[in-house]
This record gives sequence, structure tokens and C-alpha cells, in this order.
Amino acid sequence: MSEIWVWVDGCLNDVESVRGRRFALFVQSLIVVSLVCFSVETLPGLPGWAVDVLAWAEVVLVGLFTVEYLARLFVADRRLRFVFSFFGLVDLLAILPFYISTGLDLRAVRAFRLLRLFRIFKLFRYNRAIHRFHNALLIAKEELILFSCAGLIVLYLAAVGIYYCEHEVQPDQFGSVFHSLWWAVATLTTVGYGDVYPVTVGGKVFTFLVLMIGLGVVAVPTGIVASALAEARDTD
Amino acid sequence: MSEIWVWVDGCLNDVESVRGRRFALFVQSLIVVSLVCFSVETLPGLPGWAVDVLAWAEVVLVGLFTVEYLARLFVADRRLRFVFSFFGLVDLLAILPFYISTGLDLRAVRAFRLLRLFRIFKLFRYNRAIHRFHNALLIAKEELILFSCAGLIVLYLAAVGIYYCEHEVQPDQFGSVFHSLWWAVATLTTVGYGDVYPVTVGGKVFTFLVLMIGLGVVAVPTGIVASALAEARDTD
Amino acid sequence: MSEIWVWVDGCLNDVESVRGRRFALFVQSLIVVSLVCFSVETLPGLPGWAVDVLAWAEVVLVGLFTVEYLARLFVADRRLRFVFSFFGLVDLLAILPFYISTGLDLRAVRAFRLLRLFRIFKLFRYNRAIHRFHNALLIAKEELILFSCAGLIVLYLAAVGIYYCEHEVQPDQFGSVFHSLWWAVATLTTVGYGDVYPVTVGGKVFTFLVLMIGLGVVAVPTGIVASALAEARDTD
Amino acid sequence: MSEIWVWVDGCLNDVESVRGRRFALFVQSLIVVSLVCFSVETLPGLPGWAVDVLAWAEVVLVGLFTVEYLARLFVADRRLRFVFSFFGLVDLLAILPFYISTGLDLRAVRAFRLLRLFRIFKLFRYNRAIHRFHNALLIAKEELILFSCAGLIVLYLAAVGIYYCEHEVQPDQFGSVFHSLWWAVATLTTVGYGDVYPVTVGGKVFTFLVLMIGLGVVAVPTGIVASALAEARDTD
Repeated sequence: MSEIWVWVDGCLNDVESVRGRRFALFVQSLIVVSLVCFSVETLPGLPGWAVDVLAWAEVVLVGLFTVEYLARLFVADRRLRFVFSFFGLVDLLAILPFYISTGLDLRAVRAFRLLRLFRIFKLFRYNRAIHRFHNALLIAKEELILFSCAGLIVLYLAAVGIYYCEHEVQPDQFGSVFHSLWWAVATLTTVGYGDVYPVTVGGKVFTFLVLMIGLGVVAVPTGIVASALAEARDTD
Repeated sequence: MSEIWVWVDGCLNDVESVRGRRFALFVQSLIVVSLVCFSVETLPGLPGWAVDVLAWAEVVLVGLFTVEYLARLFVADRRLRFVFSFFGLVDLLAILPFYISTGLDLRAVRAFRLLRLFRIFKLFRYNRAIHRFHNALLIAKEELILFSCAGLIVLYLAAVGIYYCEHEVQPDQFGSVFHSLWWAVATLTTVGYGDVYPVTVGGKVFTFLVLMIGLGVVAVPTGIVASALAEARDTD
Repeated sequence: MSEIWVWVDGCLNDVESVRGRRFALFVQSLIVVSLVCFSVETLPGLPGWAVDVLAWAEVVLVGLFTVEYLARLFVADRRLRFVFSFFGLVDLLAILPFYISTGLDLRAVRAFRLLRLFRIFKLFRYNRAIHRFHNALLIAKEELILFSCAGLIVLYLAAVGIYYCEHEVQPDQFGSVFHSLWWAVATLTTVGYGDVYPVTVGGKVFTFLVLMIGLGVVAVPTGIVASALAEARDTD
Repeated sequence: MSEIWVWVDGCLNDVESVRGRRFALFVQSLIVVSLVCFSVETLPGLPGWAVDVLAWAEVVLVGLFTVEYLARLFVADRRLRFVFSFFGLVDLLAILPFYISTGLDLRAVRAFRLLRLFRIFKLFRYNRAIHRFHNALLIAKEELILFSCAGLIVLYLAAVGIYYCEHEVQPDQFGSVFHSLWWAVATLTTVGYGDVYPVTVGGKVFTFLVLMIGLGVVAVPTGIVASALAEARDTD
């Protein structure tokens, strides 16, 4: 009996071995399948048979994930610690909504299902490149915090400024500082949907000034992360 | 009496000590609260009680900031120098509008209130990462000035070019070089609201050429700052 | 006879020699001409004589490319290996559609013609800077894979999140997770066409959060490639 | 007499001296003034007196630039070489349209006036940081050419692909490969005006794929220039 569990433990936790890697790949492909099913379910006007197939796929997938969760729980050295570890909780949250929903309203389940997406983070479990990225974040931590704060301040000042420039001419689009914040986000990230934009001369000049300063503040962190990654690679 | 002032001085200016850090955090959270109040005030259709609550919050906050300002003034070695220092002026501007408004028109106050936002810069007072950023700016100073000038020139040339391409077909959108500048800003920063865009073949070809050259000119400074920050980190 | 083929081999494969370089430039300009012809053909409302000219140009160009292909086949040491090499297949695909189309429906040809575009890759054949780029990709391989995966995950999570925020208010624009993915792509790449955008407060706040995290994930790979290229240049 | 010309030569060409720098700044501010005048002239609905003032300002400015040009010509060692040097031609082009226009149609002048804008390049004359930028371009020359070519190829392939996806559904927006190129430019530079965008599922999936590959190709050159500038700074 004991030998079987050693073999199962190898499958579940020893990613270095051939069967461990195969099992990990299998679980990850199941997660992708479950995400695809979830997405297809949201399509409007699905035929009845498709809804049935998806419901059955859901049952099978949750069954498999449940078996995996129980096996992980069984082979864990300290079971309580596993249950409350990050991936222990994620694994539980990935299957719990299905069981909870049986006695409850169906609409509530829909919201809970979002939690299933946390299964994605399992994909990261075995990835080593994350270590280097983690180092890069440590190297550039202070600059990133500084630029994040500066970015939020620039966003807020941009929103207040455009509020005073455009409020009277476009009371709907720039109704309050919060409305203006939406414009500031869409502009400083250069998304520019085009649902709100300044029409007064003052607002346009202000937008120009904000973009000259703000673009750097919002875009520099990207460059910081990239150069910190290069540094982390050198010291590896 | 003297001992109390030494203690107060420690709170206000000694960020290294525990009570100094706590006090700084407390003042910064007050600033954030006052900014949130200011933003909420701009919401259209606020109920009467909310307007009253916000007015009272304003009185309390300005009172606290006034006490802080007077305390800072009292413990300063050279009081005149503090009053005319950058943060001395900012602290004063943060509370002055409230007192000035009492005898004046209410609408004028609204504009003055923008100055309250300068309190934000207090948040920076204690941040050390700014030093490194300052060094990075010194390292890349010349390149940044060069690219800022080149960026302005490209913007202007783009505006003149598109004016000649699109003026006749879209006399409203591209009515003058200044109208065209708005297009140039929205295009070269890649915001692209979609309120003005070329429709002639010549204008589209010109846009393509301008983007090929201009994107680099506008986007390169970001990369320069990022690499200068990496350099500043190395020489730290 | 043998001498002629040595000379032809020099033209086709020895890019170092003067006549090899000239021949390569000649073939590449033919490719550009054939692409221009292909593009002009798609213009609506072409006069009859232009259609005739383009058809004749097509015949001449395919003839020249056929001669080139046969010559390359003849001078190759191992002919079968050439036929099934990447550029051997591309060269074949560039001319095959023309011959296949003669006995078939004209509309089918149109789709096959897209393959002609693979001739573009021939332009790369002689370019040495690709080697350095290849090295840079090897250096940054792991980070690029990590960020590509993270980018896809962020895109998916963004799509699911906005689906729950906007589905009820805009059932047409955000009809399913797949509809929302289109929004996620347009937003996180900062293209922002403006055909779909959030209108609810929840959707706008969610967009802000997604952009703060997602912009970095999508934009960082660019910086990684740039710094890896600088590294590849140093170790050259 | 000779001494005066030595003094004039110092003003015109010796940027190291105090009077040389002052003169350069004076000329540059004149250029900015003339550009502002030019821009104001394009405003629709200018009152008559403003048109008169601008016309007089034009006469005065062209007079000053003519004097400068003649002085430069006089103090030059090899006059013919100066006339045909880059800045010699720019200086001439900046004043010539005014004199040519006197005996010609007024509308033709408008087009010629664009040449006046070349005065902008005079601003570059005295800037030293350009040298470092020039070095950076030399360092990264090969990569920049490679990525420019790759960028053009990606643009073209994107245009052809979207043409086949969207042509039938949106025959106006995607009427030919050239129409599609406009979409490709607006999308891959992430400007995204929103005047043309894919509506079919195939077109949207294709856009996603193109953006994943194309964004890097279009955005990487910026990072290359930035890191090459850092390198040029180190070897300075």
C-alpha cells in the first residue's frame, strides 16, 4: 500500500521526474479545457445539446480535480498546512463552487465560478523563470513604488485639471473628478477609446502638458522592469 | 516647556524616529482624506446632508493642517526661511484658500482649492528613492533635453504637414495649424481618440511617415530614463 | 558547361561576391514589384487595360521566379534536401499557385496567391543582423515565454472580469467571454479603437486595475528584447 | 574693416564665445517667432489688422534672415561650398519663397512657405548632444535597419491578412490592400483612431495574432535606441 502512495506522491509533487512532468502537463491541459468550457458557456444562444455537453464536462472535470485535491491532501506531510497554503486554498476554491451550488440558486453559482479561474495560478507552480522575475522586482522595488505613487498622483492631478477645463462645456462626460479620472486613465495609458475627450482649447492644451509629463511616469516602470530583468540575468 | 517643543520637533521633522514616522503617516492619510472629500464634492446631485458633512470635514481638516503649519513655523530655526521654502509655501497654500474665501465669492474659492492638491508633494518629503531618480535625470539630462526639443519640432512639423493635407477636405477638424497640433498630440502619443483623423490619401501617407519617425522621438525618452535609472542604481 | 554552372551557383548562393549581391538585390526588387502588383490588383474599379498589364506582369514575374527555382534546384548538391528545406518550399509556394490555377476556378486562386507573399522571407535570406537577433531571443527565451504566458492569462482574466461587469448593461458588446476578449486585446495593447468600452462604474474601475497590472505584462517583453539585443551586441 | 568681419564671424560661427551664444539664441528666438506668426496666419477668421501685422512681421523677419544669410555668405572661407552645404541651402530656402512670391500667384506662395519651416533645423546647429545620438545610431544601425524592414513586412502582411478577413463584410473600409494598410498603420502603432476596425470573428482573431507579433517589431527599435544611447554615454 505504502509503495502506491510513494508513486502517487511522485506524480503529484516531483516535477523533476518524467511521470511527474507528464502528470503536471495533464492537469494543466485539464485546467485549460475547463476554462474553454467556461468561456463557451457564456456564449449567447447556445443549443440545448451543447449546454448538456458542457454540464457533463463540468461534472467530469470537477470530479477529476476533486480526486487530485484529495490525493494531494492524503500524501501531504502536514495536512492542515497544505489546506491553508496558497495552492491548497486555490485547489479547494476551484472545486468548492460546484458542490456549494447544488442546494442554492443557480445565479449565485455564476459569480462563484470566477474563482475557478484561480486554477490558472497552478500553471505557475513549476515555472522557474519566475524566480528571476522575483529578483528583478526586488532590485527595482523602490523605483517601482516611487513611479506607482507618482503615476497615481499624475492621474489625479490630470483628472482635477481636466475637470476644471471641461466641466462647464461637457457636464455629462466630465461630471465630477471621478468621471474625469476615467478620461485620465484612458489618456495616460494611451488607450484613448474616444468616448471622452477634451473639446475646449484649455482642455486640449492641458491634455498636451499632461501627456508630456504623464506618459513618462506611466511608461517608465516598464523600462525599469526590463532593465532589472537584464540585471537579474547577469547576477544569476 | 522647552522639552515639549523638542518632542514636537521630533514628531514633525525626525522621520527616522518611530513617532516621527507615525506622525508623517497620519498627516499623509489626512491629505488623502481631504483629496477624497474634494473629489466627492464635485459629484453632481449630492444630497444636502452629504454637502454638510463635507463642509464640516473641510473645516476640521483645515484646522488640523493649520495647527501643523503653526507648529512647523514655531519649531523652525529660521522662521522666515521656512515660510519661503518650497514646502513652507505649499503648506500655506494648502490652507490659505479656506481663510481667504470667507469674505469672498464662493465660486472663486473653487479655483483656489486646486492649490490644496499641492499637499500631495508633502508625501514626497520623506521618500529616498527620489534621490536616485534625481541622479538618473542628471545622467540623462542632455539626451532628455535633445529629445524634448526634437519631439516638439516633430509635433509642429506633423501639424503643419497634416494641415496642408487635410485643410481643404476637413476645414472644421483641421482649421488651422493649432487645430492640427491637437491631432499631432493625440497621434504621436498614440492616444488616438478618434475625434480627428486624416481622410485623404495624402494625409494617411503623411501620417504613416510621421509615425515612423515620430514614435521613436516621443517614446525614446522613456527608455532613456529607464536605462539611466539602472545606471544610477549601479553607481549608488 | 560545368564552368557556367559554377558561375550560376556563385550568383545564386555566394552573397559575399559582387555578382552574388547584385543578383540577390535584383531578385529582391522583383519580389517587391510582384507585391506591389498584387496590391494594385485589389484596388476596386481598375480599368481593363490595367488588369491586362497586371496579368502580363504576373506571367513574366512567375516565369522569372520559375527559372530561378529551377536553377537553384539544378546547382543544389542534394536536390531533395533543397526541395524540402524552408526556403525551397517557400520558393515553390511562391510560383505553384499560378500553375495550379490554370485549370481551376479563379476565386480559389485569389486565396492561393496569399502564399506568394512568402517571397518576402527570401529578403531575409542574406541578412546577417538576424543572427544577433537570434542570439538575443536565446538569451531572453525564458523571460519571453513567461511573459507571453502571463500576458495570455492577464488577457483572459481581464476578459472574464469585464464580462461580469458589463454583460448586463451592454449585452451586445460584451455578449460572451469571447466578445470580451476582443475588448481585452484592444485595451491591453492600448490600441483602443473605441468600438467597445466599459460604461458602468464597476467596469471602469476594473479597467483601471487591469491596465495598471496588464500594461506592464504586455509591454515588458519589448524592453526585454531590446536589452537582450544590447547584450548580444556586447558578446558578439 | 577686417576687424569688424572677424567680430561678425565670431558672432555667427563661434558658439563657444559669449557673444556667439547670445547671437545664436537671438536667431533661434526669431525662428520661433516666425513659426508662431506662420501658425497664427492659418487661423480662420483673422481680423484685417492682424493680417496686416503678420504681413509686416513677415517682411521684418525675412529682412533679418536675409541679412544673416548674406553675412554668413560673406564671412565664409569657401562661399560656393557654404551655398551648397546643408545649412546654407536651408538658410536660402527659408528666405527664398518670400522673394519668389512677389511676382507670382498668392496661393502658390502658401505652399512654398512650408520651406520656411526648415529654419527649425537651424536650431540643431549648435546642439552637442546630437553627437552622442549620432554614435548611438551607428552602434545600433544594423538592428534598426533589420527592425525597420521587419516592421514594413509585418505592416504589409497585416494589411493583406485583414483584407482577406474583412473585405467582403466591409467593402468600403477595407476596399483594397492600400485601404487595409491604413488600418495596419493605425493598429500596429497602437494609435487606434477607431475609423476602421475589424468586425468579423476571423478579423478579430487575426488582429490579436498580428498585435502579439507586430507590437514587438514596431516597439523594439525604441528600446534599441535607448540602450544604444546608454552605451554611447559610457564610451563617451
